[in-house]
Amino acid sequence: MSVRPVIVIAGIGNGGGTGAATARVFSKQGYRVALIARNADQLNKFTAELKQAGTEAAAFHVPDYSYGSVTGVVESIRRYQWPSAEKAEIRVALWNASFGAWKSFLDVTEKDVHDSAEANFIVPFAFSRQIILAFQENEMNELGKRGTLLFTGATASWRGNVTTSVFAAGKFAERALSQSLNKEFGRQNIHVAHAIIDGGILTDRSAARHSDPEAHKRYVENADIRLDAESIAKSYLYLANQDRSAWTWELDLRPAHEKW
Amino acid sequence: MSVRPVIVIAGIGNGGGTGAATARVFSKQGYRVALIARNADQLNKFTAELKQAGTEAAAFHVPDYSYGSVTGVVESIRRYQWPSAEKAEIRVALWNASFGAWKSFLDVTEKDVHDSAEANFIVPFAFSRQIILAFQENEMNELGKRGTLLFTGATASWRGNVTTSVFAAGKFAERALSQSLNKEFGRQNIHVAHAIIDGGILTDRSAARHSDPEAHKRYVENADIRLDAESIAKSYLYLANQDRSAWTWELDLRPAHEKW
Amino acid sequence: MSVRPVIVIAGIGNGGGTGAATARVFSKQGYRVALIARNADQLNKFTAELKQAGTEAAAFHVPDYSYGSVTGVVESIRRYQWPSAEKAEIRVALWNASFGAWKSFLDVTEKDVHDSAEANFIVPFAFSRQIILAFQENEMNELGKRGTLLFTGATASWRGNVTTSVFAAGKFAERALSQSLNKEFGRQNIHVAHAIIDGGILTDRSAARHSDPEAHKRYVENADIRLDAESIAKSYLYLANQDRSAWTWELDLRPAHEKW
Amino acid sequence: MSVRPVIVIAGIGNGGGTGAATARVFSKQGYRVALIARNADQLNKFTAELKQAGTEAAAFHVPDYSYGSVTGVVESIRRYQWPSAEKAEIRVALWNASFGAWKSFLDVTEKDVHDSAEANFIVPFAFSRQIILAFQENEMNELGKRGTLLFTGATASWRGNVTTSVFAAGKFAERALSQSLNKEFGRQNIHVAHAIIDGGILTDRSAARHSDPEAHKRYVENADIRLDAESIAKSYLYLANQDRSAWTWELDLRPAHEKW
Repeated sequence: MSVRPVIVIAGIGNGGGTGAATARVFSKQGYRVALIARNADQLNKFTAELKQAGTEAAAFHVPDYSYGSVTGVVESIRRYQWPSAEKAEIRVALWNASFGAWKSFLDVTEKDVHDSAEANFIVPFAFSRQIILAFQENEMNELGKRGTLLFTGATASWRGNVTTSVFAAGKFAERALSQSLNKEFGRQNIHVAHAIIDGGILTDRSAARHSDPEAHKRYVENADIRLDAESIAKSYLYLANQDRSAWTWELDLRPAHEKW
Repeated sequence: MSVRPVIVIAGIGNGGGTGAATARVFSKQGYRVALIARNADQLNKFTAELKQAGTEAAAFHVPDYSYGSVTGVVESIRRYQWPSAEKAEIRVALWNASFGAWKSFLDVTEKDVHDSAEANFIVPFAFSRQIILAFQENEMNELGKRGTLLFTGATASWRGNVTTSVFAAGKFAERALSQSLNKEFGRQNIHVAHAIIDGGILTDRSAARHSDPEAHKRYVENADIRLDAESIAKSYLYLANQDRSAWTWELDLRPAHEKW
Repeated sequence: MSVRPVIVIAGIGNGGGTGAATARVFSKQGYRVALIARNADQLNKFTAELKQAGTEAAAFHVPDYSYGSVTGVVESIRRYQWPSAEKAEIRVALWNASFGAWKSFLDVTEKDVHDSAEANFIVPFAFSRQIILAFQENEMNELGKRGTLLFTGATASWRGNVTTSVFAAGKFAERALSQSLNKEFGRQNIHVAHAIIDGGILTDRSAARHSDPEAHKRYVENADIRLDAESIAKSYLYLANQDRSAWTWELDLRPAHEKW
Repeated sequence: MSVRPVIVIAGIGNGGGTGAATARVFSKQGYRVALIARNADQLNKFTAELKQAGTEAAAFHVPDYSYGSVTGVVESIRRYQWPSAEKAEIRVALWNASFGAWKSFLDVTEKDVHDSAEANFIVPFAFSRQIILAFQENEMNELGKRGTLLFTGATASWRGNVTTSVFAAGKFAERALSQSLNKEFGRQNIHVAHAIIDGGILTDRSAARHSDPEAHKRYVENADIRLDAESIAKSYLYLANQDRSAWTWELDLRPAHEKW
C-alpha cells in the first residue's frame, strides 16, 4: 500500500499567518494536513478552504491548550481515518501556537505567567511527546528520516527584553526543549528544528496596526520590512527536506531591512 | 534610624549547599537573613544554626512553591518585625530553588513538566515581583543600588541536552526572566544577575554519590573537580557589591579542571 | 540582453568537498562558475571537469591567499569575458577557504597564527569588499536581492576548544564579519549568510583517515555520521533563493547522529 | 625567600583608562606592576606616577604591537630584576590593548584590517604564550592557581554591527582565544577570563566628546551611564582572587542605565 504523509500543525490563528501558510505549502507537496486550533470557527473555515483547494485536510479542535487536551488531540490524529486509501503517516509536525504578552514586568499578571508557561512550555512537551511517539513508528524515508518536528520561535527565543519577560521565558523554554529533542532523537533519525522569526509577519492583523493609509500600503507592499508567512513556510519545507547527512537545528529569518 | 539590610534566600536544601553558604557569607557582612524553604525541619534547623552564630535569621516556611504561596511569603518577610532596633530593608534576594529531573524525554512525566514549569518559571515570576516591589521602596545605597536580585543558574540554563529537556526548559525560562528584569530595572538602579553554575557542587549529597572511599575522599578534597558552595556565595557577594557604573548580568562558575 | 548569473567560489580543495559540490549544484541551476584556488593543478582539473559537463566555468589562480591577491583576482572575475553572449552578473559568492591547525596551544607557531589571521580574517575582508562592490552594481532580482555572500563556518565558529585556539580565533573573526555585513548590507538588499558546519564532511581525505576497511566502508556509506558536501551545497542554494522578506543569517548543519 | 607577585598589563593608553586603573588597584594589593605600551611618554609618565605612590613599577616599551616585539617584551619582564629583594612571580596578566575602527565596511582600509588582525588576534597569541609559559613555572598559590590571564573585551566581542566589522572580527578572535585557553589550561590550574565591557568608559577622552558643558558634567558625574575604569579593575581583582573550585570564564559589565 502506498503512503501519503501527514503534516500536523498546531496553531493557525485566523488562517492568515505562518500555520496556515505552512498548511498550503505542504499540501502542494502532497501532504495531508491535520490542523489543531482553539477557535472552532476559524479552524473550520480554514479547513474548508483547504479542502476546496483539493487538499485532504482535517480539523481537530481543542477547547484550550493544556497538556491533556493536546495529548488527546494528537492521539486522535494518529488514529484518524483519512478519506483516501493510502496509508497515513505523520511525517512533519509544527508547533506554531504561542502565548505572548508585551507588558512591563509589573503589569504581568499571574494569569499571564500561567498562560505563557502553559502554551510555550508545558503543552509543547505534550505535543512533542505524541509526535515523537508517532515518528518512532515510521520507517526511514529516502532522506533518512522518520519525521521532522518544527517549532516557530521568535526574537524573544534569543533575548529577553524590557517588555518581553513573560513571552521570552516561554520562548526560551521552548527553544531548550527543541535543542534537547534534536540531540536526543537525531540518533533515531528524527529531526527537530527551531526557526527564529526575528521580525514582524505580514498578516491582516499586523497590517491593520498601520492605520495611516500610506504606512499601511508601504507595509503590505514592501517585503523588505516584514516577513511573508509563505516564505517562512518554505523554510519549513526546506528543513523537512534536508537529508540526514546535513540537517539544521536552528535558523533565523528576518526581512532584508530589519535592524537587528 | 540606622538601617540593617536583609537578604532573602529561597531554597536552602538541607543546609549544605549554595543557599545556606550564601546565608553564612552575607550574615558575616552584617545582613539579616530571611530563609524560604519547603522542608520545615531543615529550615528550622538551619535557621537555629544561623542564630546560634549570632545572625538575625528568620524562617519562612512554604508548603510548596506556587505563585500564591511565594507571593505571600515574601509579603510576610516585607512586614516582618526583626528583633533588633534598626530599620530593615530587603537589599539582596536569591532565587536558589529549582526543580530538575534528568531523564530521557519519553520518561518525563506530565508531573515533571508541571513541576519544572512551576519551580523554574512561574514561581520565579512571583518571587521577582515581590522583590522588585520591595527594592523600589529603598533609597539608593552608596553603590547606587536599590537592591540586587540573584538567580542560581546551571549548565542547563545555556544548553539543552539528551537528558535535560525538562530541566533546561525551566532554566532557560528563568534566564530569560533574569535578562528581561536586568534590562527593565537597571534604569531604576535595581541590579538583576544570573550565575551559571557549570559543574557539580560539593554537598553531603553529591559526596555520597561517590561510594568508593578513595573516590569519595578525592571528590571532597580536590577543589579542582567540584565547586565549593561558599565560593559561589562569594561570587554573589561580589555581585551585590558591584557599583552602578559596572555591573554584571551573567557570569559562569566552574571548577578549574571541569571539561566544558 | 539577457543575463546569466555567476557564482564565485573561493576554495575548492581537491574538487571533492564543499566548494566543488557548490559549483556543481549551482551550475545545474544555470550559473556560471568562477573558481578561485591556490593549487593550480587541482583548479584546472576541476574547471575542466565542470566544462566537460557543460558548465561555463573559469579558473582564477591565486599564488596565495593575501589581501592583495584576492582583491586582484575578484577584480579579474568582474572584468572577465565569458564565452557565451549573455551579460554576466556576480549573484552569489562563497568564501570556502580556511586555515586550520588542530594543536595544543603551546605547539601553535607564529606562522600558524599568521596563516589563520590571513586566511580566516584578513582575506575574507578583501573578498567581501570586492563581492559587495560587485553586488552593488546589480539590479534587484525577482527575489528582491542584489546578491548573496556565503561563508562556510565550522564548529570552531561557535566554540573555542583545547586544540582549536588558532582555528577558532580565525573562524570567530569570520563569523563576526558575516554578521556585521548582514546587518549593514541587508538594507541594500544584499544577503550575507553563515553556515556552521558542525561535523565532518565526507571527502576522499576524510574517508582515508579510516584505514580499517570496515570503518572506512561505514563512514562512506552511513550518511548519519558525516555530512555530504552536496547537502551543504543544497543549503547554499536554498539560502541564495530565500526572498527578501525572510532570509537567514545563520544556520547549523550536522549529521543526524552527531553528538553535540 | 618570600615572593611578591607581578601583574603584567599590556595597554595603558594615556593613564586614565582600564589598564591604568588595574595597575592602581593591584598595586594596592601588593602587586608589582610591569607595564607594556607603545607610547613611551605616556608609559614613562604613568610608571613614574605609580612609583611615586610607592608601587614597584617598571616600564616596558614596545615600538609596535607585533608578534615578535610582544614576545620579546614579556621575556624581558620574566627576566627583570626588581629592586626589592623578594622573588618575583608573574601571577596576573591583562591584555588590554586593542585596535578599533568604527567605519562603514566600505571605508575599512586594508591597513585597518591588518591592524585589527595584528592587535586583536596575532599579538594576543604571542602575549598569551609567554604568559602561560611564565605561569607554568609557578607553584599553585593558596587559591589553587598558578596565574590569571585576563582579557578586556567589548560589546563587539559578542556582536558584529553595521560600523564594527573590523573591530568585531578582532574582538571575536580574542574571545575565541580566551575560551580555548580557559578550557586547555584550567586543568593546569591556570585561569583565563574574559570581561565584556558593554558600554562607554569614563576617561578624559570620552568625557571630552561631550562638548556641551551640561552634558559633560552629567557624563562625568552620573555613574549610571558610563563605566568607571576602577570598577572594571575591581572586577579583575575579583577574578584573580577566585579560587579553583569556582572560577569564571566570562562576565559582562555595563552601567546601570545602559540600554542593551
